[in-house]
Order: sequence, then structure tokens, then C-alpha cells
Amino acid sequence: MEKLTDQILHDVIKPRPEHSFKGTFGKVTLVGGNRNFGGAIIMAATAAVCAGAGLVTVCTDQSNSGALHSQLPEAMFADSTDDDQVASLVAAATTVVVGPGLGDDDQSLHILKNVFAHIRSEQNMVIDGSAITLMAREHLTAPQGNIIYTPHEMEWQRLSGIKIADQTPERNRAARDQLDATVVLKKHHTEIYAADQTYQLTIGTPAQAVGGMGDTLAGMVGGFVAEFHQNPLKAVLAAVYAHSAIAENIAKNQYIVLPHQISRALPVFMKKMESAGQEKHIGFLD
Amino acid sequence: MEKLTDQILHDVIKPRPEHSFKGTFGKVTLVGGNRNFGGAIIMAATAAVCAGAGLVTVCTDQSNSGALHSQLPEAMFADSTDDDQVASLVAAATTVVVGPGLGDDDQSLHILKNVFAHIRSEQNMVIDGSAITLMAREHLTAPQGNIIYTPHEMEWQRLSGIKIADQTPERNRAARDQLDATVVLKKHHTEIYAADQTYQLTIGTPAQAVGGMGDTLAGMVGGFVAEFHQNPLKAVLAAVYAHSAIAENIAKNQYIVLPHQISRALPVFMKKMESAGQEKHIGFLD
Amino acid sequence: MEKLTDQILHDVIKPRPEHSFKGTFGKVTLVGGNRNFGGAIIMAATAAVCAGAGLVTVCTDQSNSGALHSQLPEAMFADSTDDDQVASLVAAATTVVVGPGLGDDDQSLHILKNVFAHIRSEQNMVIDGSAITLMAREHLTAPQGNIIYTPHEMEWQRLSGIKIADQTPERNRAARDQLDATVVLKKHHTEIYAADQTYQLTIGTPAQAVGGMGDTLAGMVGGFVAEFHQNPLKAVLAAVYAHSAIAENIAKNQYIVLPHQISRALPVFMKKMESAGQEKHIGFLD
Amino acid sequence: MEKLTDQILHDVIKPRPEHSFKGTFGKVTLVGGNRNFGGAIIMAATAAVCAGAGLVTVCTDQSNSGALHSQLPEAMFADSTDDDQVASLVAAATTVVVGPGLGDDDQSLHILKNVFAHIRSEQNMVIDGSAITLMAREHLTAPQGNIIYTPHEMEWQRLSGIKIADQTPERNRAARDQLDATVVLKKHHTEIYAADQTYQLTIGTPAQAVGGMGDTLAGMVGGFVAEFHQNPLKAVLAAVYAHSAIAENIAKNQYIVLPHQISRALPVFMKKMESAGQEKHIGFLD
Repeated sequence: MEKLTDQILHDVIKPRPEHSFKGTFGKVTLVGGNRNFGGAIIMAATAAVCAGAGLVTVCTDQSNSGALHSQLPEAMFADSTDDDQVASLVAAATTVVVGPGLGDDDQSLHILKNVFAHIRSEQNMVIDGSAITLMAREHLTAPQGNIIYTPHEMEWQRLSGIKIADQTPERNRAARDQLDATVVLKKHHTEIYAADQTYQLTIGTPAQAVGGMGDTLAGMVGGFVAEFHQNPLKAVLAAVYAHSAIAENIAKNQYIVLPHQISRALPVFMKKMESAGQEKHIGFLD
Repeated sequence: MEKLTDQILHDVIKPRPEHSFKGTFGKVTLVGGNRNFGGAIIMAATAAVCAGAGLVTVCTDQSNSGALHSQLPEAMFADSTDDDQVASLVAAATTVVVGPGLGDDDQSLHILKNVFAHIRSEQNMVIDGSAITLMAREHLTAPQGNIIYTPHEMEWQRLSGIKIADQTPERNRAARDQLDATVVLKKHHTEIYAADQTYQLTIGTPAQAVGGMGDTLAGMVGGFVAEFHQNPLKAVLAAVYAHSAIAENIAKNQYIVLPHQISRALPVFMKKMESAGQEKHIGFLD
Repeated sequence: MEKLTDQILHDVIKPRPEHSFKGTFGKVTLVGGNRNFGGAIIMAATAAVCAGAGLVTVCTDQSNSGALHSQLPEAMFADSTDDDQVASLVAAATTVVVGPGLGDDDQSLHILKNVFAHIRSEQNMVIDGSAITLMAREHLTAPQGNIIYTPHEMEWQRLSGIKIADQTPERNRAARDQLDATVVLKKHHTEIYAADQTYQLTIGTPAQAVGGMGDTLAGMVGGFVAEFHQNPLKAVLAAVYAHSAIAENIAKNQYIVLPHQISRALPVFMKKMESAGQEKHIGFLD
Repeated sequence: MEKLTDQILHDVIKPRPEHSFKGTFGKVTLVGGNRNFGGAIIMAATAAVCAGAGLVTVCTDQSNSGALHSQLPEAMFADSTDDDQVASLVAAATTVVVGPGLGDDDQSLHILKNVFAHIRSEQNMVIDGSAITLMAREHLTAPQGNIIYTPHEMEWQRLSGIKIADQTPERNRAARDQLDATVVLKKHHTEIYAADQTYQLTIGTPAQAVGGMGDTLAGMVGGFVAEFHQNPLKAVLAAVYAHSAIAENIAKNQYIVLPHQISRALPVFMKKMESAGQEKHIGFLD
């Protein structure tokens, strides 16, 4: 298992090309947030915007539209129950994030199936939270595409059938192979199962044990994959690493870290990583 | 009467265990906020989230959902008039906070009875504001469980039948014994009546005389009791002390303290208390 | 005409009594904000809360409830079209502010008449903006009570019948005497016409020429009068002075001043004035 | 092609006259923001308010009213489907901004036609985003008035008929002459085509490639033209320059720039430009 270091940040977060425009950095469509869990999709969208995705649209319950725009005018809104609009936004995206706050009732399932029906194989899709639970419960298969699951251990148990106590790297890898997807298994020292390699996060802090932390990670992964689409796996790894690196930094002065603080810290953090990467580049004549 | 000092903070606010997750820090369900008093339950929920409770859900009037998520995406929402959903959220909580902005009309009473009907004896419940007034007026008895009342003097008069001028420590204690609950009697130098001891707060500032200060305290008490559930009484004492200690600190530079400022200051304040406690621990080889 | 100096701030902003509670600092009911002008009453309420009024309730169009609580959870909400609720909130207040964003249609007039019908002679009432325009147009007479008008020059023309070009101190005083009210005539070098004296503001900056500045002043006047009710006239003068003193301070570094910035700066500013007053007091053995 | 320098800021951003009031700095009516794209018109309005326009009203879908006032209480709201109200707000404005988040369906078209029907020749109008797309698709001609288009290259292709690859300064000028308008062609090194001269922006950063950046620019242009109406062309040039100058400044420490950060930085930035201009004035006895 390869331990992640901040090298992954320098590898991924490069100076933006001078002639770039919004489209250069991808279109993210996020789907989730029923009338109870609107905060989850708002936190995910905030992460995607602050990570630097070019265009971000949120398909969510209409009761969340006001709170979304109050906090994040940079994101667009669509009613998640408008099947046609969701379908066309999924089709138009380069990366889709589905699950944060989606819920697990009949409407949630209907929305999830609609998303799955319109994904194309060249797209990236992050499947998180209740979307994973729904897939396991309803025996849904993920559509074609570059699929990234971000389960915590219980969600992974549901999806893979491996009980938490039995979740060894070997078994996890076998399950991942069957799914043919990238799996970000969120836990103390999160593990990322990719096609050819397993990676481990060795940083992080218990100050991150706060509701919404996973929604924020899902949005960051979506944002990074959209923006740094040249290498989606590295983008995933960088997002996972950055999430905990920022949290550790905040936790030096805080007993807990609020998820939205990580997102809001992203633009400054990413600039530092870009610059540090540049200096290293120059310094070592590499 | 034992005077509280900052020792209670060091006793309670310990470094979080390395292997912890959201569930480690409790689930708080807050119930309150009718269509007029939505701000009260939002302030209480903000306090609970910022104190570090693991998962926070707010049962409130649906007109408050947008404002809740605008300020606090970390919290989940439920419609307080949906009896089944409130019942299941109360049952799923480790700590319930009921009362901030609940109001005192028929609907408020209906909601309160629904909450009381689903509390189990192993749960903690903070009863605040109009919930206390309703109990007194309607001769409701609190359900089983670890009950914590947070009345101001007039609410205590209603609940205990002791007129403000007659509220001596002896009479208060006798009333507390009959209620078999912890009573946080909010006043100049707040008194906390526990089963075996009475505690007194000797800090605080008139800059705290601002609407919403009590709602914030109720939420902090709920958050601390959920998070530091190993010793619920100490958690209550720490919350009460921290509330005024932070306010005193802010009031050095402000003529008044806005309640939400106390909540937002919690993560940094709690980190300082944790670290100071650690240093003391090391320094005195204790 | 007496020129105001910062002495008025030291006279009014005294240390709060140690044994004080919310009720010590008054109850402000603000009425205004139709569905188009919700921002106006929100800005006024923000000023009243930040100035330190004990309890603040906002009667406004129900479409503004979410935005109010998103920014200012410390304030309570009531639907301005619910005549009974508005009546009881007006009756319960120590100070009423009516007019910011009220509008001037039939519903606005109905609301204004309802407010006027429930004011009692011992209450303070700030009449601002469209409430002044409505009074002039509909030939309404203010009810009994300590009335404070806060017109700009055009509104004063409507109310007094004196054209802007003819608004001399003598004519203004004569009109004020007939109204038997305090008049804060907002202009370059605002003039305050009280029963026995006229005061002039000699500070202020063109950076204050921003929409919402007057709504903020009305709320500050209401907040100060509620909090420093021992001398309502001095409270008015202090509010007017503080409004421009804070703006001047902000304008040292800003081309324009956003009204809500003045409100948010109040707690720190008032603490400085209190402390400076104390030092002066000690220094001169006064 | 004349390259813009910060001299344009010193030329335009002068100390405000001592005797000024809100009306001195213009009235801006912004029209846009359907139920999906509310953030766009909120960002544009934020820019107009922070730039210092005297009074700002936003005609938008009613579902955006709460989010608007949550972020920007200084702006007024009108329902964009209320034709009469929009008509009177357009007629009352000194500057109209139409297009951000307007959408391109039948209702969008109806709203746009209503705006065009009520513009008078002495007014300024900024036409942005989907309003440009609608004009091209529906073969609408702009009404009389001082028209400023702010297309990106694809929108300019639609409006002018010149394909992106063929957009040379000569062809662009010819198209501009036919339109008889100012054209702000947004691209890497934005070009501004005025009646007698073409200007080029040589600053800017790829950190600006974020959704909402253009909406913010449209609002800034509207705000500057309203406030500095003595020379609308110079106002346009200053807005374009300031937008990228602020972004460059923020991008020194951030990997991306969020559009609303530019707006919020305007008051401090404009003060610095004013002061620098003054010092230059004194220093060179000019």
C-alpha cells in the first residue's frame, strides 16, 4: 500500500494555463439534497466551486434553492425532481457527483436511476452517501464511466458485502475489482483502491469527526476530477490528501473543523501547493 | 455552593481519541423554532454544531429550513409538524434539546408532547424556554431520562412555583429534588442544581443581556452533553462556564456580545482549553 | 444651533449595570419591509440588535422571514399583515420603528394605521421613510407618544409643507413645534430639532451616499432609544453622531460604506466610547 | 489598439463631492436570474452595490428574493414577471443591466422585450449573457440608448455573425459600427470596441476562469456607468480594468478567485485608486 504524501498535491496542482476559460476546468453536476438534507449538497457544491471547477450546477430539492444561492451564488440550481432537466445536466457535465443528502426513499431512488440512465462512458462520476446505500439495497449496478465511490466503512459493507471487521486490503481489492471502480474507503487512515494500486492516507485528525465532512470530500473529489481531468486518479488522490491536510492545519487552532471551512480554505491552500511545487521544480532543476 | 472555575473546562475538554468518528460525539436532535422564532432554534443548533456534537438535526417550522441551511449547512432539517419524523429523530438521538423558539400555542404543545412520548430513559434531554412555560401551564411531567432544565428566573417561578423573590438555594434545591433533574437557573451568577451539589457561576458580563443568549446556552449544553457523554453533569457545568468565559472575552472589546459570536468562537476556545489542560497535566506530573 | 461632538457618546454610552437582563435594554418592534423592500427592514433591525436593544422583533412581509433569520437570528419575526400580532407586538414594545421599506400602497397604509392605533403615550416611536410619505399624503396625524421623525429633505418637504429650498432652521423649528416631535432632518450636516434646542451634525462623508443608509440610521435610533431610555433625546443624538462617526472611520479605507458595516461595527465602537468616557471620567475627577 | 493602464482608474475614480446624496450616483435596475440562475443576478447586483451605485434594484424570479436579501440587503427586489413593475423600474433607472442568468426560454424573451420597450435614449444599458444570445437568436434589435454589450467570444459570434477564429479587430470594429454600441469582448486580453477607439486589457489571470466572473463584470460595468455617468465610456474602461486588477491581486494568494470576492474588495480598492490619483495630482502639480 502506497502512503500518500504532499507530493501528490505538487503533481496535480499546477499553474493554470494562461489561455484558459471556464470550460477548461470542467463542468460538475451535483445531485442530492432532499428537503431534509439540503446542507449536504450545499457543502459538496461549495467544495467543488472552491476547488476550482469551471461550472457547477446543483440538482436538489427546490426548498434548498434559496440557501444554496445565499451561500454560493457561483453555483446554478436545478430541481432534482425535474427528470428532463437533470438528464440534460448530467449529460452536459464532465463530472457528476451523486448522493450527498439524496436520502433513501422512493424519490431518491427515482432520481438516482435517472442520473445513472444518462451517464456516458467518458464521464467521471462520484457516488457518495445514500446513493451507495440505495445501490446496495436495490441491487443497482453503476453505469459505464469512470466511477469513484466514496463510502465510509458501513456504506462499504453494504456495497461490497464485506463486514467492517473483515474489511482487509485483500478483500477490499477483490471487491473493487469486481466493481471496476476507484474506491475511497473513508476511515481512520483512509484507503484508496485504484485499478493497479492501493493508496493510504496517513494524515488527518479527529477534529474532522463532524457531520458534513464526507459531503465536503465528495464535492472536492468531484471538483478536482473535473479540473484536473488529465489524470482523474491523481486528482482523486490529491483531493483526499488536501482535505485532511487542510483539516490538520485548521485543527492546530480549533477543537473541531467545520466542513465548510475546508472548502473556503481551498483557494489559498491550492495556491501554496502550486507555488511550493514550482519552487521545488526550479530548485531541483527537475 | 461550589464556585465553578476553568478547571471544569480542563476536566471535560480532553483531546479527542485518535480513532473516533461522528458517532463518537453523539447525535443531537433539537426541537423548536415556530414560524416566528426560527432564529432561536438556529442559534441553539449553531451552538451544538460548533461545540462539536457529531450529528445535529433541527426539527422546526418548514419556513425556517432555508435560513437554517444558509447559516449552518452542517445541520439537518426536519419539519416539526411531521410527528412520525420527529418521533424517530428523538428516538435516534443521544441528546434532545427542546424549547428554543417553540412558542406556546396548541401546535407547540402538540410538538412537545410528541417529543416527551418518545424519549427513553437512557437519553439526555435539555428543556428550555417555552417548553418550560408549557410544562408549567399544562401541568406536564417530564418523561424519564437525564433531564436538564435551563430556565431563567421567571420560567423557574412558573415551573417550581417559587416566586423570584423567594428563590433561595434551599427552596430551589427542594424543588429540584422533586423534579429529579439538573436545573441551570440562569441569572446574574447562574446557579446549577445537580443531584448532590449546587454550583455557582461567578463570571459573566452584562454584555450578555441580548436576545438569543439563552437559546445559545441551551444548544451548547446539548452539544456538550452529547459530546462529553461520559459525565453529563460535568458537561453541563463546562458548557455553562464556557458560555460566559467566551462572552467575557468578547466583551473586552465589545459593548454587547451577539449570541452567535459565542458559538463561532467555540472551536478555537475549546482547543485552547484542551491544550492548557494538557500542559497543566504535563507540567504538574498529574 | 448646537454642534454635536463625541461628548454625546460619552454622555450616553455608559457601562451596563452589573445586574441587568434583556428587559433592562428595552424591546424594539420594527414594522416595514414589503415584498420588494425587505432589505430595508433587515438593515434597520440589524442596527437595533447590534446597538444593544434587549429584544428585537420585525413585522414584515412573510417573504422576508428567511432572509431576516439568515442574517440576524437574534431578531424575531412576525407577519406584518397579521393585524392582531402586530398590534400586540406594538403594545409590548418600549420603542417602535415604523417605515423602512414599508412601501406606500394600500397595504402599507393599512399596516401603518394599525401601528398608530396601538401606540401608547409612554412609548417611543421612530417614523421613517415611506411612513412619513404616507402620513403626508393621507393627512395622518401621529398618535401620542415620544415621536421621532427621521426624514430626508424631500420627505420633510412632504411632511412639513416646506420646500427644500425654503427649509431654514426657523421654518423647520416652527414645523417641528406644530408636530411636537423630535425631527432628525437627514442631509449634508444633519439637523436635529428637539423641543428646546436644535443640534447639528458636522461630521459625515459622501461615502455614506448608499441605499440603505437611512434605514440603518432609523434602526440605530430605535435601538439607542430603547437601550438608553433614561434620556431619549440624548439617545437620538448619540445614535445620529455614532452613525456618521463609524462611517467616517470606515471611509478612511473605503470609497463607499455599506450600511450593514456600520451596524456590525457598533459593538466595538460602543465599547471604545464607553471606555474613553470612563477614562475621561477618572482623569478629570468629574 | 490602446492598452489600458491604471491611469484609467485615476481618471475615473475621483473623490466624491462633499454635497452628494444617493441620487448623485445613479439608479441601477438589473434584470435577470430565472429560477435556475439566481446566483448570476445576485453576483451582478453585488458588484453594482459595492461599486457605489446609488440605488440598486433587482428584477428576478421571486424564488431568488430571499437569497438576494440574505446577501445584499442594500438591493431592492422586484418580480421579473411583473411586467408593469419591471417597466417602471427600467424607466426610473439611469442604467439598466439585462441578461445575467436571464435564461433563454419564452419567459426570458418576454422579459427582455419588456425591458427593451421601456428604455429611453438617454439611458445606459448593459446587455450581457443570455440577453445577447436571445437577441441573436430572435433577431432583436437593441433599442435606442447608450448600449454596452459584454459578450464572451461565443456570444459575440452569435451577435456579430463572426466566427471565433475570424474575430479580428477589423471585423469586430465593423460589426460594432453596425451595432453602434460599445462592445466589451471578454477573452484572454479583453478588447473594448468604442465609437472612435479600441482598447485592450493586458492584465488578468487564469484564476478568473470561474463561473460567475462575467456576471460580476456586467454588474461592475453597470455600477461604474451609473456612478461615473459624466463619461460612460471611461466608466466602462475603468470597470473592466478594475475587475482584472482586483482579481490579479487576490490571485497572488489564491489558486482561483471567487467572483463575489472581487465585488467585496471594490470599496477598499477604489479608495486606494482615489487616493493614489490624488497624490499623483498633488505631486505633479497637474
